[in-house]
Amino acid sequence: MPNVKYLCVLPTVEKDTDRLTKLTVRGTLTGNPQEFSVNFVNDPTCTDNITYHFKVLVRLQTIIENYKQKGEWSLSHKETYLNIFDETDFYLEFTLDYANSTIVVYQLRDSGHNFICEYNTLFDLTEIQAVQIWGDVQKINLFAMGYD
Amino acid sequence: MPNVKYLCVLPTVEKDTDRLTKLTVRGTLTGNPQEFSVNFVNDPTCTDNITYHFKVLVRLQTIIENYKQKGEWSLSHKETYLNIFDETDFYLEFTLDYANSTIVVYQLRDSGHNFICEYNTLFDLTEIQAVQIWGDVQKINLFAMGYD
Repeated sequence: MPNVKYLCVLPTVEKDTDRLTKLTVRGTLTGNPQEFSVNFVNDPTCTDNITYHFKVLVRLQTIIENYKQKGEWSLSHKETYLNIFDETDFYLEFTLDYANSTIVVYQLRDSGHNFICEYNTLFDLTEIQAVQIWGDVQKINLFAMGYD
Repeated sequence: MPNVKYLCVLPTVEKDTDRLTKLTVRGTLTGNPQEFSVNFVNDPTCTDNITYHFKVLVRLQTIIENYKQKGEWSLSHKETYLNIFDETDFYLEFTLDYANSTIVVYQLRDSGHNFICEYNTLFDLTEIQAVQIWGDVQKINLFAMGYD
C-alpha cells in the first residue's frame, strides 16, 4: 500500500473489554493539499472491508463519511460541509461507542474540542483491526490511543 | 506471550526520518502490585533482543534498566532508587534520541513532568519494532506516540 502515510495495527490488549475508545490524531499537510483520510479498516493488509472512512476535501471544506464492504464503497456516503479545516494541519479526535456502533469526530483546539460529525457504522466496531491515514499528509505528529 | 498486558507494533511511517520520538503511557495497576515493565523490543513476536527494558519494583521504589541480547540479559543492569511511584497507577513519558542512542524517562503529573532516568542503549534505537507492557497492570489507559 504505497500511498498509506501511516498504518497502525491496533495493539493487543489483555481483555476484550479494554478496547480502544478514543483516538487522537494530529498531522501536518503537504503544500497545496487536496484531501486526506483516516480509515478504520477490518484487516491490516487489505482494504476490502472498512468500518469507517473519514475523508476531508480540504479545498471544498467537505467531510465524506462512508464504509466499504467486500471491496465496494457504499453508495450512500454521508457528506457534510463544515468550514473549519485549514491547509496546514489537522487535529482530530475519534471516539468509539461500541454499544451503539457509532464513531463521533471532534476537532481539537487549544480552547477545547468541537463536534464535527457522527457516523453509525454498518460493521460492529469490534471488527476494526487497524487505522490507516492516506492523502496529502506531510507527517503524523501524534497518534494517541485512549482506553476509558 | 500470555503475560504481555499490552503489545503495540510500531506503526508504519512513510519516511524513515519520521520515527517515534516520544511515547507516553498511562496505566492503572492491579491491587497489591509488585512490579511492571515496559520493553522496547526488536521483534514483535520474540523477546530475545530488547533494546530497552524499563522495570519498576513498586514496593522497593526501584527502577531497573537493562537490555537483552540473543536471549541473555546484560549482567550490568542499572538500578535507581527513586521514591516517586504509587501503587495505583503510573504515567510515564519515554523520549527517544536516535543520534545519541539514548532513552530518557519522565514521570508526568498535572504540574509538569519530572526526569526519572536516562539510558544509553547498546542497540541502535532504529532496531525497536514494538513496545510491550508486562506485569501487575490492570489496564493501559493511554498509549500515545509522538513524532517531533
